[in-house]
Amino acid sequence: MKKIFLSILTIILLQSSTKKELSPNIILIFMDDMGYGDLSCYGAIDYRTPNIDKLASEGVRFTNFLAAQAVCSASRAALLTGCYPNRIGISGALMPTSKNGINPEETTLAEMLKQKGYATGIFGKWHLGHHKTFLPLQHGFDEYVGLPYSNDMWPVYYDGKPATSTQHMSAYPVLPLIQNNDKKEEIKTLDDQAKLTTLYTEKAVEFIKKNNKKPFFLYLPHSMPHVPIAVSDKFKGKSKQGLYADLMMEIDWSVGEIMKTLKENGLDKNTLVIFTSDNGPWLNFGNHAGSSGGFREGKGTSFEGGQRVPCIMRWKGTTPEGVVCNQLASTIDVLPTIARITGAELPKNKIDGVNILSLIKGDLSQSPRKTFYYYYRRNSLEAVRMGHWKLVFEHKGRSYMNQLPGNDGYAGKAPEDILIPMALYDLRRDPSEQYDVQKLYPEVIAELQKIAEEAREDLGDDLTNRKGKNVRASGLVE
Amino acid sequence: MKKIFLSILTIILLQSSTKKELSPNIILIFMDDMGYGDLSCYGAIDYRTPNIDKLASEGVRFTNFLAAQAVCSASRAALLTGCYPNRIGISGALMPTSKNGINPEETTLAEMLKQKGYATGIFGKWHLGHHKTFLPLQHGFDEYVGLPYSNDMWPVYYDGKPATSTQHMSAYPVLPLIQNNDKKEEIKTLDDQAKLTTLYTEKAVEFIKKNNKKPFFLYLPHSMPHVPIAVSDKFKGKSKQGLYADLMMEIDWSVGEIMKTLKENGLDKNTLVIFTSDNGPWLNFGNHAGSSGGFREGKGTSFEGGQRVPCIMRWKGTTPEGVVCNQLASTIDVLPTIARITGAELPKNKIDGVNILSLIKGDLSQSPRKTFYYYYRRNSLEAVRMGHWKLVFEHKGRSYMNQLPGNDGYAGKAPEDILIPMALYDLRRDPSEQYDVQKLYPEVIAELQKIAEEAREDLGDDLTNRKGKNVRASGLVE
Repeated sequence: MKKIFLSILTIILLQSSTKKELSPNIILIFMDDMGYGDLSCYGAIDYRTPNIDKLASEGVRFTNFLAAQAVCSASRAALLTGCYPNRIGISGALMPTSKNGINPEETTLAEMLKQKGYATGIFGKWHLGHHKTFLPLQHGFDEYVGLPYSNDMWPVYYDGKPATSTQHMSAYPVLPLIQNNDKKEEIKTLDDQAKLTTLYTEKAVEFIKKNNKKPFFLYLPHSMPHVPIAVSDKFKGKSKQGLYADLMMEIDWSVGEIMKTLKENGLDKNTLVIFTSDNGPWLNFGNHAGSSGGFREGKGTSFEGGQRVPCIMRWKGTTPEGVVCNQLASTIDVLPTIARITGAELPKNKIDGVNILSLIKGDLSQSPRKTFYYYYRRNSLEAVRMGHWKLVFEHKGRSYMNQLPGNDGYAGKAPEDILIPMALYDLRRDPSEQYDVQKLYPEVIAELQKIAEEAREDLGDDLTNRKGKNVRASGLVE
Repeated sequence: MKKIFLSILTIILLQSSTKKELSPNIILIFMDDMGYGDLSCYGAIDYRTPNIDKLASEGVRFTNFLAAQAVCSASRAALLTGCYPNRIGISGALMPTSKNGINPEETTLAEMLKQKGYATGIFGKWHLGHHKTFLPLQHGFDEYVGLPYSNDMWPVYYDGKPATSTQHMSAYPVLPLIQNNDKKEEIKTLDDQAKLTTLYTEKAVEFIKKNNKKPFFLYLPHSMPHVPIAVSDKFKGKSKQGLYADLMMEIDWSVGEIMKTLKENGLDKNTLVIFTSDNGPWLNFGNHAGSSGGFREGKGTSFEGGQRVPCIMRWKGTTPEGVVCNQLASTIDVLPTIARITGAELPKNKIDGVNILSLIKGDLSQSPRKTFYYYYRRNSLEAVRMGHWKLVFEHKGRSYMNQLPGNDGYAGKAPEDILIPMALYDLRRDPSEQYDVQKLYPEVIAELQKIAEEAREDLGDDLTNRKGKNVRASGLVE
């Protein structure tokens, strides 16, 4: 009798523990234009990010993690749907004049988790369409406070002065701060912008406290360190290394607040925290931009400086501590991995991400991701990747090389029509894409060409005038 | 009475603990031509170095650590004396025909620690003079097994075939493996070279076991991964990523053996382990070279790819765990730091290193090192550094850019006479030295010029035909 009772108890306990494990909270912190080299655990110098470094030392730090595309809207579309952005018809950065946004037919990470009973909140930049039909509450989120698009889409120049008629931003409307579906406030000055990091953090902390009894998905896409950069009074001058460093210290503080709140609410163990960035640094802004950490080029390019981003995943008791994962992975892998963790159903539409739970758990022997397509512009396949090999196709693109950067809120030049020749790079020996080794590895080129053909067949390619078989349209308002 | 007894006991215990703390064992593992990007904790991809990553996660990982000069003998001279190599008359790489070596008037790290009763052993490459008067036993070491100079200074080409008369190594004698002061064996083939990593490791393990009751200084300067690279049978093919990756796995195994031995002998806590490299990768060897991790250029240049190296310091209970130190430091700082730790007297001659114990202990607010001089060739001041600023002076130097690397044991080209223009780099935003910002920061240039003048006054500079006031001569045999 006692034996039977114990067996039943064991089964009940096992089930309840399985259930718990299937519903960890998810916190996804997404930076804007933060480069690979902007955190001290990724080699930043002269300022420190101790809270983020601690996150890394308690979890897995990825060194070979790619944003899906090197620009805002495309990158965010990919993160939230697990698709290459061109698969779902989103490219580049949506403008205040854009009529398109995320298609209601697509399943976002928030919608996926909603089905599993998660509370869902977004505090920060959305940028998947600013018309009501595209806003977060229509795409799986219970709560939203933040900017509908980038913080430089306002009638103000990067230095904080009203835009003159020759500056492109003079055409933009006032920047709205949205709460749920309505404009809550207007962001009119750099001082207003300086409050955003704190505001988002406070809202995130409130959200965690409020939902400490049920599983939640917190999406925290900071507006910073995208230009125009602005820092709250409590961090102004703190780094003694300039505004960008002050700002990185504030971001680090924000991460510290989140982690403190988790601990105080007994949620430290049952929460997967992911920290990453939408693309590399916007280098022509000089001391108002971040660092690519030594990778070539930056935002708006398909070189590693545009797409390789820091990524830390920390889930106490599940991720090993202080481990470095050098296997290939991407933001598009976040959704299917969370589906696997939570038992949520994958979107009904075809996605591109793969489940990388094995990496998060510390099995680093191989990556579930074998290849990656570097698309840019509307739909140009600029490069493909297999393991450490990267084949770049001839294309015209942005380059920051040999250009004097701007400084202190002024933009330097970054021409968009530089001819980039075809090249094969071995990223293992040559992470900064300096040494074209096409002549040495014809057999590798053949394999990568095959992968490129598959990409063109499936998703299309403007560079070779190919239409993809499996692309879907974005949403559109009339 | 009982109280007095307890007080006395406390004093005795305190004293003995102080004594112990003053005599930690020192293990200094020094790689040859291993680049910044060759360890997974520094971003290496497609192979892993878990034992070294573990060392980092248990200690301090430096991201802004400079070898004193980007070539073998000079770098080693600096490490072992705490001086810029030109201060003590050592430059470049000593050859089998060289008549000079380390001056007996200089105090090495081994001699310094010998005064404090340390057992001292070196197992690996010396390269501070191969004539008897220069060998390790005459410079503070009790025991020596290893090569007197680089493993490519033998009458064999990099691919393992006997050198032909047109290849420069045809002039070299057979490579001797030295034991103490005598030739023990001859290294004639790549198979012989393949045994070196294991041999050095075994000798190091023996040395630790033998000296587990007294403080010891173990210097383990591996011959690998300097070309010609060779790996033991047990690691051949293990990475499935080529010979260099196999070799890095073997190096990682070696570190694991050392750490295992420390634990087994109860020395895990009272040992400071330092792991670093003599200079960046020799990039023209293609797949037989390492990676600079994204920094510009490699070995033989004063760009960061030549001098920025991984450095991990781990001293259980003293170093914080899993901390990243992004403050400036250099191999020349190792000697004065160890002097401080052990209470040993500093060399009587002027040295250049500073005590960085504060960094090792986790006070990362500032570095005791404010500036750094990048000397190369005989005595050319090619660049100076202050914090994150680096001023490069016009000079002719080696470049790997736009050159096809060799592969599989063949050397590609790396011209030595490329004109490098003057440039100012902000390494915080631009770690790969791509964007000259001279025009933006005239006041920074003025400060750096002042630092350069101090260097020229003190140490001289061939580029400006200056003689240094405080340089000393190397040793010389007749």
